[in-house]
Parts: sequence; C-alpha cells; structure tokens
Amino acid sequence: MVASIHHYIEGIEDEQTGWLNLPIETEDDLLNSIGNVANEIKCNADILVVIGIGGSFLGARAIQDALTPYFGQHQNGVEVVYVGQNMSGAYIQQLLNSLKFKDIYVNVISKSGTTLEPALAFRVFRQYMEKRYGEQAKERIIVTTDSKKGLLRNIAQNSGYRQFVIPSNIGGRFSVFTPVGLLPIAAAGVDINHLIEGAKKAAIHLKEEKLEMNEAYRYAVIRHALYKQGYQIELLASFEPSLARLHEWWKQLFGESEGKDKKGLFPATVNYSTDLHAIGQFIQEGNPILFETFLHFKEIIDDYRVPFDNRNEDQLNFLSNLSFNEINATSKEGVAFAHSNGGVPVIQLELQRLDSYHLGYLIYFFMKACVMSAYLLEVNPFDQPGVEAYKNKMLELLNTKLATEQI
Amino acid sequence: MVASIHHYIEGIEDEQTGWLNLPIETEDDLLNSIGNVANEIKCNADILVVIGIGGSFLGARAIQDALTPYFGQHQNGVEVVYVGQNMSGAYIQQLLNSLKFKDIYVNVISKSGTTLEPALAFRVFRQYMEKRYGEQAKERIIVTTDSKKGLLRNIAQNSGYRQFVIPSNIGGRFSVFTPVGLLPIAAAGVDINHLIEGAKKAAIHLKEEKLEMNEAYRYAVIRHALYKQGYQIELLASFEPSLARLHEWWKQLFGESEGKDKKGLFPATVNYSTDLHAIGQFIQEGNPILFETFLHFKEIIDDYRVPFDNRNEDQLNFLSNLSFNEINATSKEGVAFAHSNGGVPVIQLELQRLDSYHLGYLIYFFMKACVMSAYLLEVNPFDQPGVEAYKNKMLELLNTKLATEQI
Repeated sequence: MVASIHHYIEGIEDEQTGWLNLPIETEDDLLNSIGNVANEIKCNADILVVIGIGGSFLGARAIQDALTPYFGQHQNGVEVVYVGQNMSGAYIQQLLNSLKFKDIYVNVISKSGTTLEPALAFRVFRQYMEKRYGEQAKERIIVTTDSKKGLLRNIAQNSGYRQFVIPSNIGGRFSVFTPVGLLPIAAAGVDINHLIEGAKKAAIHLKEEKLEMNEAYRYAVIRHALYKQGYQIELLASFEPSLARLHEWWKQLFGESEGKDKKGLFPATVNYSTDLHAIGQFIQEGNPILFETFLHFKEIIDDYRVPFDNRNEDQLNFLSNLSFNEINATSKEGVAFAHSNGGVPVIQLELQRLDSYHLGYLIYFFMKACVMSAYLLEVNPFDQPGVEAYKNKMLELLNTKLATEQI
Repeated sequence: MVASIHHYIEGIEDEQTGWLNLPIETEDDLLNSIGNVANEIKCNADILVVIGIGGSFLGARAIQDALTPYFGQHQNGVEVVYVGQNMSGAYIQQLLNSLKFKDIYVNVISKSGTTLEPALAFRVFRQYMEKRYGEQAKERIIVTTDSKKGLLRNIAQNSGYRQFVIPSNIGGRFSVFTPVGLLPIAAAGVDINHLIEGAKKAAIHLKEEKLEMNEAYRYAVIRHALYKQGYQIELLASFEPSLARLHEWWKQLFGESEGKDKKGLFPATVNYSTDLHAIGQFIQEGNPILFETFLHFKEIIDDYRVPFDNRNEDQLNFLSNLSFNEINATSKEGVAFAHSNGGVPVIQLELQRLDSYHLGYLIYFFMKACVMSAYLLEVNPFDQPGVEAYKNKMLELLNTKLATEQI
C-alpha cells in the first residue's frame, strides 16, 4: 500500500506536486535575489508589512516565530508584521497608527489576488504607501503571485511592482519554500540557505520507498492506524513556546489536506508547560479519543541555569545543578510517560537543534507525511473544496446588505 | 434536572464556590487597594513581570489581550509580560536581557508556591530584583497567594512583601475576579471596576433557576445535549483576533472541569478569518464530530472604512461603503450559515460591546455554564486529579537524573 502510493506520488506529473523536488531544484540565483531584496528592506525600512492569509502567511509566520527572539527582533532582521489574515477594523486601524514614525516595505502574497481578506488589506496599504511615499511607493511594494495570470499579477504589471513567482504547481499549504515563505523570513533575519539545505536533505532522505527506511511514511502509517482504531484527534505537543505558530501551520497542512469526505483526524495543538495546567487534565483523564505527537528539539540556542539560593525557602536547591532546558526536556519525558500510562498513544519526533536547517527538514517531513497520510485515507491531499462555501455565502450576504442599504 | 443542580450549586457551602457571589460581594476597599498598587506600578515601572501558570495566568492574559491595543500598549497602563508558564531557558534568558534598561515590578501568583514552573521563575526573578534594587526590591515584589498557609505565603512573610489574597474557596480557573486577575489587568490599564460591574450583573442575572430565563444554563444544556448525540469537540470561534487568549482561558475552564472519568467535550478554538483558511476545510467537510460556538461582540472600539479606489483594479469598489468590522460581522453570518448548512451545529453568543463590562459578564457566564454542564455530565467541576500525574513522574525523573549525575 505504502509502496504503491509512494510510486504514485513520485510519478504524479500534474499541477500539484511542484513542492516535491523544489528544495533539490532551488537555484542559488533565486535565493540570492530574495536575499538581495531582503537586504534592501533591512537598509530602507524598520518594518515589513506582509499581506497574506492561509498558506500565504502561516508558514512564514511559523518559521519567523521559531527562529527569532521572544523579545525584540533578530539582530539581522527587520520587524515583520502581518495583515490581511483577519478582517478586524481595529487591527488594521491600530496597525496603521503604529507605523507613523517608521519606514515601511510591503510584501503582498496571493496567487490570484481575489481572496477578500488580503485583497482588502492590500487596497488599504497600497493607498497608504502611495500617500506616504508618492512615486517611490512602487519601489517599496513587492508582489508575490502567479507568473502568468490573476488580478494581483495584473496590478503588479500595471504599476511596475517587483514580483516574485508562486509556481503554479504548488498549492498554498505546500508553498513555504517558495518566495511566499522565503522573502518574509529572510527579511526577519532567518538564514534561508540553511532552511533550504535542511529541506533538501529531507527531500532526498524521504524519497526512500521502504516504510522502515522512511520516517515520514512511518509517521503517516502510525497516525492512520490510530485513526482506524477510532482515535479522532491528533494533538501536536511542544515544550518550546516559540513553536506555537509552527503548530498552526501544521494544523492547516493536515486539516485542509485530510478534512474531507467526512473523514480525517482533527488536528489540535498544545503548548507545554502552559497547557499542562489547562487542557492537561482532559488529556490525562477525559474522553479517550486523542493521541499525542511530541515535537522535541534537543538543543535550543539560549538557556538559563537554575540559581542556588542560600535561603532555599522554596526548597528547590536540589535543582540548582540543572538548566531550564534540561528540566524542560525531563518534563517532556514525564508528560509522555504520564499520558501514555493514562492510555494516550504517544508518538515522539525528535530533532537535533532548533535552527533553520532542522526546521527546513521538519517542515518537508510533515508535507511528505501528510500526502502519504491523505492517500492512505483515500482523499485528495491537494484540494480544499469546502473553503468556497463560506466565501460564497459571505459575498451573497454582502451584496444583499448593500442592495438593502441603497433602497 | 437543571433546577435540582441549580439548587445544589447555590447551596454548596464547601470550599469550591467562593466565586459564585464574589462579584456581588467584592468591596470597593479591595478594588481601591488594587487600583492604588496598579497606579504605583505605573509610576515606578515600565514593565510588570507576572509569574503564574494555569488559572494564575490565563484569565489576566485573556482580558489584557482583549482590551489593550494590538500594537503598543494601553495609554493608561504599563507593559505586562508573563513568565513561569513555560520552562524554556531561552524564554527566561531573553526576557531578562530585554529588561536591562527598564524599571520593573514583579507580581508572583500561586496559591501554594509549590508548582514547579512559577516557583523556578520566581527564584530567578527574586534574585534578579534583589541584585538590581537591593533593599528596595521588597517594595517592588507583590505576592498574590493564600492568606494562611503555603511556601509562597511564608516567603512573603519572611521578606515583608506586600500580599494580596487568593480566597481559599476559589479554585484557579475560577479566580480571575480575585486579585489573581485584577492586579495584572489593572496595571495593564483595564478598568477593573467595570469588569466587576459586568460580572456582578451576570451573577445576579444567572441566579435564575428556570432554564428559559437563564442563558448560562441554556448554553450548558445545549452543549450537553450535543455531547449526548455523539459530538466530541466544541469549537469556540471568534472573528476578532484579540480574543484568542480568551479562548485559551475558556479551554482551561471547560477542559479541566469536564475532562475526567473518560468523559467530556474536547474544547478547541478557531480564530477567524485566519482559521477559515486553515482548519475551515475540516469543519466544513471533514469528520463530523464537532459543533461550533460563535462568540460575537457587536461593537468594537476601533474600525476602518474600505477606501474607494479610482482604478478599481481589484474590483472591490462595491465594498467601499462599508467598514472592515461591518464586513467582518457579515463574514461571521456567512460562516455560521455555511457550516450549519454543512451539518455543523452552531451556537451563537452575542454581546453588545467589546469592553471590560461585557467581558466581565461573559467570563462569569462561562463559569456558571461550565459548572452546570459538568454536573449534567456527572463529574465534579472543581477538581483536577489528572494534573498530578505528570508532576509526579517529572519529579521522579529529575531525582533519578540528579542521582545518576552524582555517581
């Protein structure tokens, strides 16, 4: 089964699998030109405003959060803020107010340009940039879109904006290694060459047909087997808070690829230690419909040692030989044991270091696993027909509202 | 059934229901003394560092996020940052680095003082404050803890720190209207008098015994009925991104109160529009095990009008009569219709305005509903026996690790 799906995936020559060999085929020229624009942004701006939603937003945001500092910004990067992923008037108004004394670049990301949320945000920011920068605005707006067609492509052509291409054979949730993800994270200070190196390593490793040699397929097969046993929810769990946005990207990848034909594991996430004191009780003793996938990086760039305290009023001197990350890793083992002991199946994914290389590897790993998993479930991993339903109803209601107001 | 549970809840004279009449009984003296300390913090500090986890953290964070600006901080408040809710060495190291040129107060919140994550963070910050402020440190550390016992209470007594009391008959997830929640959010600039006013209104309204007159009980009964029909997941959905942390508070409230004896609805959350382009596909067409509760505030403080554009290259001029919040509200209607049409039961909770009064009302509403819901499920809403499992295993592993290293 796995082998035949493997050959099917590797052999698809349709419009959906451009991501499969992308990291292997990515040319230095592309990385250099993205790097150059990122450097230009760092020189001329304090903030990059990224406009996008779904796959045009979650991947970049995930990598940025995972690899830039918790407080303040990366020493090699500018601040990157996102808009067009929600429709809050307060959010856009307050964002505009906050930009007053800062220099800005805009990167608008959309394959078609017709998705309402980012299209409206771009309408606002295009006018804002023209008002602030006049003729110069067009140097400060970078468009990431289709190479041949679409409203956004036409706008970029008409106004002479610089463009990066979203390959037509790569869907949104598989697009993080294209300029969709690469430009924002390069501007944020992340090393995109190492990211692609890691993804390339994964693309080569995970071409292996045999289940026992292919970790992505093993993960896919195990989660599918648990689904078949009646488990309904997969919880992705991490102990490093900077991974929360990576979890959100993972939710889209699996939820949108598998959630169709009334099937699929519901993808949910937990961020420990916080969630041990929130949803932890439910996992340990509640409705036993979930299993847990732990994501762990063995080395984290910064750490802090528990200080010794003469007074020892808190009775914690016994830990003063250890660092927080060491205790955190032990905590992970304790939780995995306790949950597993409570009847929750546990999968553990372990990577050496939280850096761009290993994150590139992991992201590709999840993509490959997801596609195998979806085919095991007998659904098409590359479409998302259900997303149209709300869009159509929303537009119908907006038109009714406007017609009523005109009477 | 509802009426008899109602009488049971109102009649419990045990150690768990202090929250029930708290908003009605809160005295001005307490609010004034919290307000005074908050003002002192605003005068003498740039940042308040709050140390807490679970119920000692999620409520304050939820209200702060919902009622302070998306970018920058409230004009009447200081910046509030949280620590002790995770065990990341990178987080604590980078937080300390970011504080160098800023003046600080610390508020440590724990009933016992023995929960490992906040206890370790307080050990670090207590030493940090003593090093930076010397004798003055004790003026800058505020302790929120039990009035009679516990490690943290002892530390506060020994060092002469100012103390606020967590009433012994109020559990963590019901404690947001005590100083646990009130001091951090007052420092952040939120009006705590209005918050308590709203909660008081709810406490009076929701004393109504009859199901048809009591909205909290209606919500509890409906979600319980859906659970009995076989639904496994409740998704709390909002269209205002500032409510994301309120969702996290709600997850703890329901997950920890109901997730026991192998029972309970799994509480999950979505933040729209973002999640329409992430998990939206799954909701519309995936495994039909979930229902959705929409949370909507009719008025949001800031808004932005869609600008007219002569070029109309994006074909959106038909919306230029509307504001983002108007479109967002219509979007909510469209999504509710589309999901309901796709077979997902939809509950709608609507409040007039996103402000501290209505948030106080809503939070009390959820608490009261949760307790009714848990009793309908025949579980005890006030305990969390499963949270001990990981703690015990973690301490066992830490002791083993330390013993091994000493050999």
